[in-house]
Parts: sequence; structure tokens; C-alpha cells
Amino acid sequence: MDQSESNQLPTIPAHPIGYTDAMELLGHMDGPLVPSYRRGLLDIDYRFGPEMLTPARKVRLEVNVETERRTIHNVVGIIRGREEPDRYVVLGNHRDAWNLGAVDPNSGTACLLEITRALGEMMTRGWRPRRTLMFVSWDAEEHGMHGSYEWIEEFGKIMSDRAVAYLNVDNAVREVYTLRARATPSLKPLLREAAKMVPWPVSTQDGETLYEVWSKRSPQTSDPDSPPEIDLPASASDYVPFVRRIGVPILDLALVHRYTYTYPNYPLYHTAYETFHLQKSHIDPDFKFHRLMSQLWAGLALSLAEATILPIDTSEYADTVREMYDWLENGYGSKFEGATISLDALESAVSNFSQAAVAFEEKLSSLQDDTDPLVARMYNDQLMQMERAFIDPLGLLYRRLNRHTILSSGLYPTETFPALGDAVRRMGSDWTSPGKADKLKELKEQLSIITFFIQSVANTLAKPASTVF
Amino acid sequence: MDQSESNQLPTIPAHPIGYTDAMELLGHMDGPLVPSYRRGLLDIDYRFGPEMLTPARKVRLEVNVETERRTIHNVVGIIRGREEPDRYVVLGNHRDAWNLGAVDPNSGTACLLEITRALGEMMTRGWRPRRTLMFVSWDAEEHGMHGSYEWIEEFGKIMSDRAVAYLNVDNAVREVYTLRARATPSLKPLLREAAKMVPWPVSTQDGETLYEVWSKRSPQTSDPDSPPEIDLPASASDYVPFVRRIGVPILDLALVHRYTYTYPNYPLYHTAYETFHLQKSHIDPDFKFHRLMSQLWAGLALSLAEATILPIDTSEYADTVREMYDWLENGYGSKFEGATISLDALESAVSNFSQAAVAFEEKLSSLQDDTDPLVARMYNDQLMQMERAFIDPLGLLYRRLNRHTILSSGLYPTETFPALGDAVRRMGSDWTSPGKADKLKELKEQLSIITFFIQSVANTLAKPASTVF
Repeated sequence: MDQSESNQLPTIPAHPIGYTDAMELLGHMDGPLVPSYRRGLLDIDYRFGPEMLTPARKVRLEVNVETERRTIHNVVGIIRGREEPDRYVVLGNHRDAWNLGAVDPNSGTACLLEITRALGEMMTRGWRPRRTLMFVSWDAEEHGMHGSYEWIEEFGKIMSDRAVAYLNVDNAVREVYTLRARATPSLKPLLREAAKMVPWPVSTQDGETLYEVWSKRSPQTSDPDSPPEIDLPASASDYVPFVRRIGVPILDLALVHRYTYTYPNYPLYHTAYETFHLQKSHIDPDFKFHRLMSQLWAGLALSLAEATILPIDTSEYADTVREMYDWLENGYGSKFEGATISLDALESAVSNFSQAAVAFEEKLSSLQDDTDPLVARMYNDQLMQMERAFIDPLGLLYRRLNRHTILSSGLYPTETFPALGDAVRRMGSDWTSPGKADKLKELKEQLSIITFFIQSVANTLAKPASTVF
Repeated sequence: MDQSESNQLPTIPAHPIGYTDAMELLGHMDGPLVPSYRRGLLDIDYRFGPEMLTPARKVRLEVNVETERRTIHNVVGIIRGREEPDRYVVLGNHRDAWNLGAVDPNSGTACLLEITRALGEMMTRGWRPRRTLMFVSWDAEEHGMHGSYEWIEEFGKIMSDRAVAYLNVDNAVREVYTLRARATPSLKPLLREAAKMVPWPVSTQDGETLYEVWSKRSPQTSDPDSPPEIDLPASASDYVPFVRRIGVPILDLALVHRYTYTYPNYPLYHTAYETFHLQKSHIDPDFKFHRLMSQLWAGLALSLAEATILPIDTSEYADTVREMYDWLENGYGSKFEGATISLDALESAVSNFSQAAVAFEEKLSSLQDDTDPLVARMYNDQLMQMERAFIDPLGLLYRRLNRHTILSSGLYPTETFPALGDAVRRMGSDWTSPGKADKLKELKEQLSIITFFIQSVANTLAKPASTVF
């Protein structure tokens, strides 16, 4: 196919290289030093260029890439729900691999297939879940989450209206030390509870259940009673369009090695060495940990599919938003003040969310077991609407395909609301100089935008029709 | 307040003038003739200028406008629903008037207050509707629908999730000859049925009910059995943000004079002559027609609030979309063909919508009276999702605040999909000349966009979870 047939094809030649070649090339760069948080771990200075250390060298890059139109295939299995077939709990894993992929993604694929096998057997005995379960095998994830992005773009309206949660297991077992979890904040309590139900399959002093071992080995803080570390969603797998395009809560799970925060990927990541032999001989010989991941994944899915009231938490989400506000206020409060920009409206929205979350959960806790199905449906709809309310239909400034105002990445690393954090970074150190007028205007707009969306989120949790919303 | 405090204030001086002054000014214009469909009814040539007929004249325009910050007030009354309080049927009328406003808007206000009085009395006897009724008195409609636009912008997410329909009566009784109705196509059958339940309050050979008189006096076609004329929503009152921002079905109703299609507004429109005396002595001496409008408005609201399955029609909507497609194909099919652009995908989406509508209505007709409330809720949600699926979150090209891909106005008068119709008009007569390449690209994009949204609409009506949607 010709380059002109699509305005989406990249025009910059690009090719992966090994680190020996990388060191050779990067080692010749001169110019200013790259900031420390952007440097890698190779034994070289990291410099921007464009100057070179020795007299100018030339590198010839020959890239042989075939540009062809190919068809990708997502495969979807559906167990239609009995009471609420129009509510979807989606489990996903991608199918394509760079090479043989016995870790990425096949360890996840194996779990997905095992879960469908087990649930299929339950169905022969007459079982049906309350809500619909959808199992999706994505294609072309390694190329940029194409399978999941296209699926969400095509069915986005339906998924936004009906999907309860998306549970992603890209690669289930990279190693067998601890769990690595990313979660929309509202699903953290569910994950912790589900992990308590799964036995750790080998003997260890760190605990009997997944939860116990996980908390011991990956605590959030140094407190011995600390819960385990759970991160916010990032940008690395098929959950991204669910979060950032349409606002569906997600979980992303993998069993990993010990040093996952220093070396985020296992050493054989994406290489030809990801073979069945690797799993069978080295990582998980009896597949006990694959079974653990299947139990965890299925347990989560069934909780979401069966519980009368969806296990979606409001207070944990409000806490996360509060932390983002506090980071902003602590770091930049004086700058805002110096530029006579009040944070009161934003703080008020954040507080309103917390209060609304608490009030909502009080109402839930007073429900009887035999709650009228329409009453449950109304509360469940509100829980779903909470997540959707974070979505800005126009997308974030400069990153229009990211629409989640809290869980998208910014251009800069911050721990606050992404677009506002970026606007703050763009201000530099002096906010009041005349040359900053445009950036200041942009900052105020971003402050208004995030205030609006957080207040919208709070509004969704109010008692319907007790006020104008 | 200073002009610089807001980038929304108009910067072009503008002032209404009487037609004598207008004739004087316009009569001096020279230049090309304005196209016939843009000319008014004054006894002058209508010419664009900028040349003048006689040696250059100067006009001094002195505009005294106070620029002040004022607060506007929308007033909302709520009757909380019993079974589905999170489903809102919204009735609206604006409260502000140019002068005394005994027609516009007070005749509508009187009906709104009468309805709330009557329903309030029913409530003292223990009545509650199934769904929530919301009664809104808008402010600043005459200034540009500010009250309703701001309300929708602030509560848009909630209204999009929960509002079933919006019933607008800006001015209820302009005259007493016939009904003037605008409707989202899905509400046309409901309106016709409701009109059959309302007696015409004076003796006439044209019929006994509102429906009979209306069909006789305002038939859609010359066929004696023709149903009455019902137009699509336009851009003139508080229903606009419901339709064009968030995709809620609407009705807009008024009792009007005979020549409403020649002289769209009654002669005393927006003048100081709109007094109580005008209504009492000339238009509706016993207020029988105000009562008729109250009966109609309340009847519609109660149908929407009480019926187990929402009276929202799918086939009528599909027919409207089909008509828009046919107009395009008949008028421009050969142009598309000549430029090698296929209309097949669009035609397929339009057909899919028709088929999905028919299949959906077959399912509804087989429901029992005692349908499980969750089953009814599922179907009702789909009916609501149908309308939302027309909404393009990015808005229409060049008219970004209009997001309804079918019911927004285009820049040009057409009877097809607005943004595509505009793109077609911009092509001019020769579609294949090289200078048209950019416009052709834009045309293809608009074709893709409308195809996508119509197919999304069809998808919402499919049986949930029988396929990937």
C-alpha cells in the first residue's frame, strides 16, 4: 500500500536496536545533559546533541518495512446475563505476540481460555450470570493497542452505556514473586477482597493467601499493616481505551518478579526466548500460578457479574482526587496565590465529591438484601455514571484522544490532574511576568475545566431528583 | 462591566429597527441581487452591496447599551418519581419577556402553573408518577436561550443519562386556529395520540378533538386522510440545547394562526401590545384554548412519566433518516458517482437502522403487561440510547456547539444530514476539478462521520449481548 493512502502512517523511519548498538550511537552525542529523570541505565552520559563528541560521524540506517494492508481480528465470546443482559463485564487479553510470546501474551491467554472452559462447564449445568460476561481476545496490541482502540472507537457508545468494568490480563505470569496491579481507584477494594479469596499455591512464611503474600512483599508503605501497592492505570495495554476514551473502570493484573519497580519488565521481555520451555522449566513448572491468576481473574469477574450492588467504591476514588488536589496545593498553592488565582472552587468540588461519596455509601449500607431490582439498578447506574462523568468529550488539551480528566497521562510527570499539571509546568517559575499572559489564561481555563468535571462527578452521586440533578 | 472581562461579549454594535427605517437603509444598497430564498417581503430589491445606489451615504448609528453583570434565575419544580425517580420528564417554558409578554411567554407560563397546580392537588391525594416530573421556568431565553443553555451545560451529563424527554411550550396561545408542532421524530406518534385525547373547546365542522381539527387545518399533504404537519426541531427556543448538545427527544408546541407558514410570527410578536387585554379581549376570552394546551402538555408529560415502556418510536425516526438519505441520493447521487465516492456504506447504515427499528418494535409488541421491571428498563434504556447515539462529542464541523448529527441546522438550507449537506454545497458544481481536492477530502470525512453515527444508532437497538453490542 502507498504512503499516500492513509494520513495515519508514520513518516519517520524507526527500528529497534540492541543496547550495544545503542551505546555506540548514544555514546557519541554531545550537547546539554538530559535531566536525571529522563536518563536510562546505560553506562554513558545522556546528552541531547545535536553536536557530536568527535568530528561528525554518519550513520546509515536501512529500514526494510513492508507496508501492506492487513486485517486484524478481535475474537469475542459472550455469556449473556440472565437478569441484566445489558450490563457487560469485559475480560480481555491480547493474542498477538512479537515472537512466540509464552509470557506476553500467552500466559494471559491460557488463563482466559481456562476461565471460559470452567464457566462453559458451569453453563452445561444450567448456570448463567446475572450480568453479561464478555471475553475478548485482542489483535495487534503490540502494534499500539490497535485491536482494542478500534473496538472501543466503533462500539464506544454502547460500551459507555453498558460496560460495568474491564479486566485486563495482558501477561498473567512474568514471574511468581508478587502481584502487580493497576486499578481505577473505585476497584481497589474489590481487588483486595478478591485477593483474600485466592490461596497462595506454595508454602511461604509471607502468607497463606494471595492478599497476605502480596501485602507482605509489595506494601504500599513501611507500616507492617500496610495494604498492598496498587497503581493508577498507565498507558501500556488494552485497558487504555476503556479508561481514557469512554470512562469504564479497569483492573490490570500480572504476577511479577521482585524488582518490578526498578526493572519494570522482566529480562526476556519481547524476545525470542519467551517459549513454553521458559514457563515450564523456569517460571511456573506446575502452572500453579497460572491457576492462581485464573482464580483471581474469574473471581473478580464473577463478583462484578453477580453482586446485586456493583462492587464499585466511591470513597476511594474521592480520596485519590483529594490526593491529587493536595499535591497541587502543597507544591503550587503559593504560586496560584501570587497570581491571584483562587483554588477555592476546585477545593470545593473535591470536597463535594468526598461528601457525596460518603453519603452515597451510607445509603448503600442501609439497603436490605432483597432490594427492589429497580432500586439496585438506580444505584448501580449512578456508580457507572460516576466514572463517565470524568470524561471530557473534547479530550484533554494537546492530547485530544485522552478524554479522562483524572486518569490520562500528562505531558509532564506530575501527581495531580494531568492537564492542569501540564499547564502549571508550562508556567515555569515566574507566573506573573507579562510574557506569561497566554499561559496564565490557559492555566485558568484548565482550572475551570477540572473543577467542572469533578463537580459533575459529585453531582452524579446525589440522590436523583431531590434537586435539579 | 468591561468588554475585556469576557471573550463572549459581542463586539459588533447591533440594534433592532422598524421596517420603515429598514426600507430606507436597505433601499440604498446596490451590488448583486440576494438569492430569492434569502429575500424578505419589503417592497425593495434585495441587494448585497457593498456599493450604494446614489453617491455614498453615511449612516450614524448610536447604540446605548449598558454592559452589566446580572444574575439570571431558572426556577425548577420537581415531583419525584415513585418507581424510577432517576428518569426525568422535563417540562419547560421561559419566564422572561421583551415587554409584558402576554403571549410570549406568559401564555405558556400560565399553562405550566396550571399544570403544577392540578398535579399538586393530585399529590395531596397520594398520587405520585412512576418517573420524575421536572418543571423548569427558564430565564433569559429572549437573550439567546441563556437560561436553558447554561443549565444543560452545567447538568448535561446527568440530563443525558436520565432525561427521557423535554416538552417545551414557549408561548402556548398565539392564536386559536391550529397547532404548530416541532418534534424529534421519535415523539411524533405520541403527540398524535395525545392530541386525540384533547377535546377542541369550541364547535367547529373541522372536528371534535384537537387531532381532528389540527389534521383538517394543517394537513401534511393534500390527501384527505393526511396526518397533521409536524416539523423537525429548529433553533428558536429552549429545546435547542436538549436536542443539539445532549440528544434528548423534544416536543415544541404552540397554538397559532392560520398563516403560520407564510408569516411565522403573529403580528404583535415581541411588541408592547402583548398585554393581558390582548388575550382576554381578542385571542382567548374564556381561556378555553389555554386549557386545551394545558391538557395536551400534561397529557404528554403523564404518558412519558407513567407508561411502562416509553412511548418513543423507532420506525418514525428511521423513516426520517431514510428521507434525508433519499434527498441526498436523488439530488447528488450522480455527483458522488462522478467523483468515485460510494454511498453504499451510508445507505447500508440507513437500512440497518430501519431494520433494527422494526425488529425492536416487534420485540416490544410481544411484551406482556406484567413485564419484569428490569426487562422494561432495558428496553427503555435502549430507546434513550438511540437518541444519544446521534450525538457527535466533537460537534459538527464549523458549528461545534451543535452535536446532533441529524437535527442540527446546517449552514445551508438542505433536507439531508446537516454537515454532509453543507459539504456537498461547498463542492459547487464541478466536483472533480483539482482545486476541489481539499473540499472533496472534507466531503469524504463528513460521509464517514454520518455513516458512523447512523450505524451507532442502529447498534443501540440490537438485542444487548447477542453480539459484541
